[in-house]
Formats: sequence, C-alpha cells, structure tokens
Amino acid sequence: MKALFFDGYKAEYREDLPVPVREPHQSLIRILLANVCSTDREVLKGYRPDFKGIMGHEFVGEVVESGDESLVGRLVVGELNEGCGSCIYCRTGREKHCLDRKVIGMSRDGCFAEYMTLATHLLHVVPEGLAPEKAVFAEPLAAALEILEQVKIDPTLNAAVIGDGRLGFMCAQILALTGIDLTVIGHHPDKLKMFEPYAKTRLSSDYIGSVPGCGAVLPAYRKLAADEQFEYVVEASGAPAGFDLAMNIVRRMGTIVLKSTYAGRKDLDMSLIPVNEITVVGSRCGPFEPALKLLSEGKVSFPDVELYDLKDWQKAMDSKAFKAGFDFR
Amino acid sequence: MKALFFDGYKAEYREDLPVPVREPHQSLIRILLANVCSTDREVLKGYRPDFKGIMGHEFVGEVVESGDESLVGRLVVGELNEGCGSCIYCRTGREKHCLDRKVIGMSRDGCFAEYMTLATHLLHVVPEGLAPEKAVFAEPLAAALEILEQVKIDPTLNAAVIGDGRLGFMCAQILALTGIDLTVIGHHPDKLKMFEPYAKTRLSSDYIGSVPGCGAVLPAYRKLAADEQFEYVVEASGAPAGFDLAMNIVRRMGTIVLKSTYAGRKDLDMSLIPVNEITVVGSRCGPFEPALKLLSEGKVSFPDVELYDLKDWQKAMDSKAFKAGFDFR
Repeated sequence: MKALFFDGYKAEYREDLPVPVREPHQSLIRILLANVCSTDREVLKGYRPDFKGIMGHEFVGEVVESGDESLVGRLVVGELNEGCGSCIYCRTGREKHCLDRKVIGMSRDGCFAEYMTLATHLLHVVPEGLAPEKAVFAEPLAAALEILEQVKIDPTLNAAVIGDGRLGFMCAQILALTGIDLTVIGHHPDKLKMFEPYAKTRLSSDYIGSVPGCGAVLPAYRKLAADEQFEYVVEASGAPAGFDLAMNIVRRMGTIVLKSTYAGRKDLDMSLIPVNEITVVGSRCGPFEPALKLLSEGKVSFPDVELYDLKDWQKAMDSKAFKAGFDFR
Repeated sequence: MKALFFDGYKAEYREDLPVPVREPHQSLIRILLANVCSTDREVLKGYRPDFKGIMGHEFVGEVVESGDESLVGRLVVGELNEGCGSCIYCRTGREKHCLDRKVIGMSRDGCFAEYMTLATHLLHVVPEGLAPEKAVFAEPLAAALEILEQVKIDPTLNAAVIGDGRLGFMCAQILALTGIDLTVIGHHPDKLKMFEPYAKTRLSSDYIGSVPGCGAVLPAYRKLAADEQFEYVVEASGAPAGFDLAMNIVRRMGTIVLKSTYAGRKDLDMSLIPVNEITVVGSRCGPFEPALKLLSEGKVSFPDVELYDLKDWQKAMDSKAFKAGFDFR
C-alpha cells in the first residue's frame, strides 16, 4: 500500500508497504482523508527521535475489519493514544497519559497510508450526514473541547485567546459557544478577521508599552486596569512570548489554559503565580464525541482543507493553508 | 503606645506612637498576641520598599471601639487586605486581590502595636473557649485551607507536601483531614518526625538519582513509576528547587499547588505543563471561619508559640522556633 514512512531522519513516500494485519482488539481501517498537524512537521524536525514508522494521526476512514461486527462499513475517526490498560492512568480514565502508551504517527504506524489498524475502543463513529471533509476536524476540535473538561467557564465573565492560528481558531470557536465576552489577540490583522463574527480582536502590540532602559527604551507590557484584564486566557500562540502576555493580561485568581507546546525552557517569574493566585492548566487531547456532535450540528466551522495526493506530501507539509491533508479516495 | 515601626530601611521599637483613631467603618482593637511571619522578615530585607509604618499582620485582639456594638469586648482575629470596595475584584469576592488594597503591616499600620484599627468587615470573632495562643494561628491556617477552596481533593487518590517547615505543617494537617494517603517530603529528618502521626515522610534526597555528565555525575530526579507519583503536590518548601521536584513527582493530569513565594525568576521547561496536562494553582490567603472552627475543635494543633516582649523584637525575628510572637497582655 501507499504510505508516508519516516525512517528516523526523513520522510519517504512508498508504495511497497504491506497492508497491516489487525490484532483481535483492533479494527482495520481504510483511510479516506488524513490531515497534516503541526506535530507531524515537528516529527520531521526530530521531535520524536526514536520513532520509525508511518506518520500521521488526524484521519477519517472506513472500518473494513473489526471484532465489533457492527462497525464494519462505518465511517470513523479515532483517538491517538492506546494505553497498557492496567496502570493507574488507564484505570482512572487517563489512557492518553499511560506511560507505556502507543501513539499513532508518533510511536507506532499512523494514518498517512491507505490502511491503518487501531484499538477498536478508540474509534468514534461519524454521525450520519457529516461529510469526511468535516469529520476529519474531530481530533483538533476535541483538543479545544478539553478546555471545557478541565475548566469551569463562567460565561458572565470574560476570556481571551492568544494566537490567531489554527489552534486559536478551534479554541475561540469552543469558547464562543459558551456566550462569554471573548477577545482574540494575534499578530496578523488578516487572520484576526476570521474571528470577527464572534469575538473582539486585538493586535498583540496593543498590550506592549515601553519602559526606559539603559540609554534606550525597552518594550514591556502595559499595566492594565482590572477591567481590561481577563478571567480566562487561553495561550494558543505556539510561541514562548505568548505565556508572558498571558501572565500580563490574566486577572488575579484567573486561569491560564496552556495549549501551546513549545520546546525548550523558559525563564519565568514564578512568584506571580502564588501571589496573584493564578491557575495554569496544561491542556492537550480532548473528547471526540462532543467534537463530532458540534461538527454534525454545524455549530463550528472551518475553512476547506487543501487536499493533496500522498505523493505530494512535501507540498502539504509546506502549505500555508489553514489545514492541508491527503485524499486517499 | 508601644509599636514596632519600620521606617523604610529598618525596624525600630518605639513607645511614643499615638493610639490610632478609627474611621466609621473600622474597629479599634487592643492587640493581645501577634505572631511573626516570614513575610515580616522579608519586609525587614526590603520586600516592600515603599512601606513605612507599624509591622505585623498575624494577631488576636479585643475590640475596644466599633460601629458594630455587638463586637465590643469580643476576641477577634482579622484579615489582612482591605479593598476599594468597587472594582471587579471587590465585586466578585476577591477583595484580597484588589489592585488598590491596603494590607496591614505591609502597606498600612499593622499589629505589632498595642492598638490597631481594621475595617470591621474583616474581623472574625474567636469562638468561646479558644485560647488566644491558638486563635492567633487562624491566619496561617486559613492560607492552608485556601487549598480546599481552590482544588477539589479526591481523598481516594494521594498527595504530597514538599517542605517540612511551618507552611508545610499547616498544609499537611489540612490535607490529612481529608483522609487522603499523604506523604511529606523534606530536608530535615528531625522536622519530618512532627508529621509522622498522620503522614508518610520521605527525604527529598530519596527522589534524586544521578546522570552521567561531562566527566562527572550530575544529580537529577529519578524517573518514577506511575504509582510512585502523586495526584496532588503542594509546594511549600519556599525554595525554587521545590517546584522542580513537584514537576517530577506529580502525576499526569495531576495538580501542583504553589504555596511558596520566592523572589526571582525561574528557568522552567514549560512544555511539560501542556504535554502532561499538569494544573499549577497559585495559592495564598484563605478563609478564616473554617480555620477558627478547626482550631476550636482541636482538629489541628501546633507547637507552642515562643513569646517575647515587643522590646525584644530582634530576638523574635531571629528565633528558629516553629513560631515566635509578641505578648502585649
């Protein structure tokens, strides 16, 4: 079969890989669409040095074989992480954090291929009438819904999303559905326009003031009045400076949701966290079922995916589109 | 009256200060006992460069004048922070975070004096039968109870307190009252003994392993199995290394409560927070009423306070006792 294989150093398009054989607890899935995520781009840069295998983890496909007969022929999406089933994490509903988990496209074969196997309990059936082109957004949208699983959002207060990219777009749509007073803060006037139907928008530079330095004027965050601050701040910029901005705009006793993962260490004034009683919530993968429901009901929407043939994988990786993906149909 | 006055550079024992005159919304309190807190020691080191006035914020006293007649003659303790009454913080139950708040002993006259005024709504009546020597612990104990206000503690899981000092002692006693499996981690075998009636104890060094470095062996944290990790970790060590240890022993999707405030910046691998979905909760002052109730019922207990005459304030500041204080009776 066709697949995009990562050999530990570089990706390679191959047509000679065998169709995988499912284990009894797994289903065999024929991939219809698979989207590129920024994590895939990180894999290409060396984020997973021990990984060799087929890349990709966002997909929609059709079940062709399964221990659960009722799934055969159904359209499905699937979760990334398969746990060991017996550790404290697996026993307390945190399979995605199992220390021995297998992750598609990151520690075992993924979905940039014509076929993939996946543990049957990780599959979610796509609701009738939801097109594959939309269902494929279930995984990144689920990650945004994780915010609602982790934080009690009081819709009478206010919230800000830092970041006008894909991650910010998902998070902002989910927060907007609570009815909360929402502001999106980004660097790009053109991207910020996408948020205007449901959020106020502001340029990050609006929060920069300046302080006199040694013979120069240094940039610094403006001191905000309490009513300019935000109760909830979702950091989805993907840049370390996003966290500094978050700390400067969050209210005392407010909450910062940290969605961005960036490599490397960061120099932080930790005393602000206890003194101002800030809560910082790290947030990653989330629940698929509400994501599929919202997509199915049209409550959230996204720009069309830019679809490529798998052979042209480099173009998809280099694409600046909102989302690029591969069409296997 | 007698008072310990901080002139912006140093503290001075004085006997020539006038008894303060209360405003209509305030009560006048005759101080009976006042305890030294590490924050007072920080004030002496320059923590509050703009502050000039009477030091101290932990006290028990008797109301001598008040707009609320029913309080006159009653034994009271009191909260530190008086807000403006009109901002978003004051209107949403967060008076202690009001940006214009006045703080006793830190931005206005405090309790190391024979008399002090305080906004009447900040006073809490000491329950009948609770001795002043115990009631004076209400403020630091309230700070430990803030953990229960902020974090839903599931008592079927486990918790660790990092730090075997005063702050750790308060936090550990409060957590122990939930019945949770509790471990206290500290540097001092002698101090750890105090926790043995209700917690497992471990030396911080038990968590240190080593990794080969450049021609040497560097200390590093041991990699823990999931069942050696903790669901809740309260960082109360007062040292920046405490946070590193917390990040190494907390479970994925677990919670770190940050109680320690230490000046200065800290170099941190921020990506661990979203990847492991850690929640970091900054925690400071807390609720007085449950603190007084627990003290009154004898559910928590502390070593005796080492009491000094105010003239001997330097001895109290230098004391290594669990708690030192001043007796005005």
